[in-house]
Amino acid sequence: MKALVFQGPGKTSWQTVPEPGVKDAADAVVRVDTTTICGTDLHIIKGDVPEVAPGTVLGHEAVGEIVETGSEVRTVRPGDRVLVSCISACGRCRFCRENRYGQCRGGGGWVLGHLIDGTQAEFVRVPFADFSVHPLPNSVDSAAAVLLADILPTGYEVGVLNGRVGPGDTVVVVGAGPIGLAAIAAAQLYTPGKIIAVDLAEPRLAAARAIGADATVGADERPEELIKDLTEGLGADVVIEAVGVPEAFELCTRVVRPGGRVANVGVHGKPAALHLEELWIKDVTITTGLVDTYSTPLLLRMMAAGRLPSAQLVTHRFEIPQMEEAYDVFSRAAETGALKVVLGGPPHDVVALPA
Amino acid sequence: MKALVFQGPGKTSWQTVPEPGVKDAADAVVRVDTTTICGTDLHIIKGDVPEVAPGTVLGHEAVGEIVETGSEVRTVRPGDRVLVSCISACGRCRFCRENRYGQCRGGGGWVLGHLIDGTQAEFVRVPFADFSVHPLPNSVDSAAAVLLADILPTGYEVGVLNGRVGPGDTVVVVGAGPIGLAAIAAAQLYTPGKIIAVDLAEPRLAAARAIGADATVGADERPEELIKDLTEGLGADVVIEAVGVPEAFELCTRVVRPGGRVANVGVHGKPAALHLEELWIKDVTITTGLVDTYSTPLLLRMMAAGRLPSAQLVTHRFEIPQMEEAYDVFSRAAETGALKVVLGGPPHDVVALPA
Repeated sequence: MKALVFQGPGKTSWQTVPEPGVKDAADAVVRVDTTTICGTDLHIIKGDVPEVAPGTVLGHEAVGEIVETGSEVRTVRPGDRVLVSCISACGRCRFCRENRYGQCRGGGGWVLGHLIDGTQAEFVRVPFADFSVHPLPNSVDSAAAVLLADILPTGYEVGVLNGRVGPGDTVVVVGAGPIGLAAIAAAQLYTPGKIIAVDLAEPRLAAARAIGADATVGADERPEELIKDLTEGLGADVVIEAVGVPEAFELCTRVVRPGGRVANVGVHGKPAALHLEELWIKDVTITTGLVDTYSTPLLLRMMAAGRLPSAQLVTHRFEIPQMEEAYDVFSRAAETGALKVVLGGPPHDVVALPA
Repeated sequence: MKALVFQGPGKTSWQTVPEPGVKDAADAVVRVDTTTICGTDLHIIKGDVPEVAPGTVLGHEAVGEIVETGSEVRTVRPGDRVLVSCISACGRCRFCRENRYGQCRGGGGWVLGHLIDGTQAEFVRVPFADFSVHPLPNSVDSAAAVLLADILPTGYEVGVLNGRVGPGDTVVVVGAGPIGLAAIAAAQLYTPGKIIAVDLAEPRLAAARAIGADATVGADERPEELIKDLTEGLGADVVIEAVGVPEAFELCTRVVRPGGRVANVGVHGKPAALHLEELWIKDVTITTGLVDTYSTPLLLRMMAAGRLPSAQLVTHRFEIPQMEEAYDVFSRAAETGALKVVLGGPPHDVVALPA
């Protein structure tokens, strides 16, 4: 089969690799019908995630059909249409039993396209299938469903829930790429008072407005002053970091109010300065996190009910063999305006946001 | 009257200053019978808290007798023996109504010995007396009560509650000075599984053991390895920073387990490195905070019931006019073994820890 293989920092290739099969009784093999590229994949290629070994097939998001299951798999069977979650879970370890699947100690966690071969391929072996795939209702199409593999639960769990967004809160989202937009969409489930998006790129700010941001701030617009003006000088209740660079994180800690929360969602490759000389007295809570995807079934129901956006998050569609072209468009997002690029699936079936 | 006056970085003097009187209808004036010196006072003298103006009387902890009250004060009157809390509170602003008295926007917060004259004096004016002093029962002596002005609520609220210590947790406390020891004492209210104290000084580690630490780690003992050994390689559930230097904070973020909490209590004068390249994926929660002292009435009841230590926290007693000698002993803690130095009050009345 064909797959997108990481060849070490700066290099990937779309090449022929052996087709995967069941290796463990809890495995399923899925034929990938729809997949996508994540900002994290670009971090891997950049060298920010050094544990990814050259030779690994990238990708941790997919929708597809089960073609084979191991003898212990009970909840899905060949022919089922499923979402492959970015997080696999043994279901049995201490962390899995606390819903912290992302921190699974039993061989799961974020393994696809990281520690084992991933979803940017024609087929993928998914470990612990009972805890790692979600059967999909027909009412949710593949291009919408694939957003539930990572970005929507990440925005919701790591951004909105870790940040404890509540009714009336002023929420600042720094970074209006796919993850930031997912956080903006998910924050609205808690009826915040105001969502302010910060980004360098005007097209991304336009996307943020389309998805529900009440105000947007460009790089040249002094985000700190504007956020002060919008919050009676106090700062924001919740600030979500959705970029993954020190400058963005440090901005978050400057615009949060006393008693507020900073939820880091970005994948970082280097340290940030934590200005404890200002923050020690300020009652702030800073969270980091890898998504657990415990919310995926809930978000799937919300998606089916038309309460989550999908069309606005997808800017480009490709066929799966166009993987390298898709990477090119996604990695040059500043020029191409790419948000989510979706590969495979019928090109016309993106669910529209309810009016 | 005599008072300890901050004279700019590196300098203080015990000198004659005008006696305070009621300036606002919500004020009380308290005759200071017992006071103490806080690590924060040393941070001020070091220059870490630049908003303290030269000429300010230091000190934010006291027990004394009300000698005068403004016309609006309803809950205390002259003759009452009270605890003067390190936090004053207007009681009316948004933050006070959320119990976040430390962040009071109405003129309270940490003002004593910071923005207005403090308690290291013969008399102190306390603003918003109804919300800023606590009448004391006879069963709690002054040297025990003065620990409730700051260190015990700080250890409890900013360390134990922010860190969400729970039954069975492994709790690491970095820094076994008065605040760290207060956190060790307060943590035991939640029946943790294991408390590990880290400090450079063996006498402080001995104090930590006396107050309830199950294990102690000296500077030359590789805290990271020992904590790994004690936690099946995972790291601690809760790590409390009670020093206030970047190295201590950074150690906290290295020894916390995935999904764990780092509660910063220390007063910092410079930034720390936040290693987001390791932490982004680790599900950690970092909190900072100034104490609110909303827990003071509860801790006072616990103290009266013999459920909190006091004698082990007090190493030196002085008369109030011996202020400069007390500062000398406290600031050379590494040599003198000083923990809390208490000035004033009957010298014999420290409550013993129940066996």
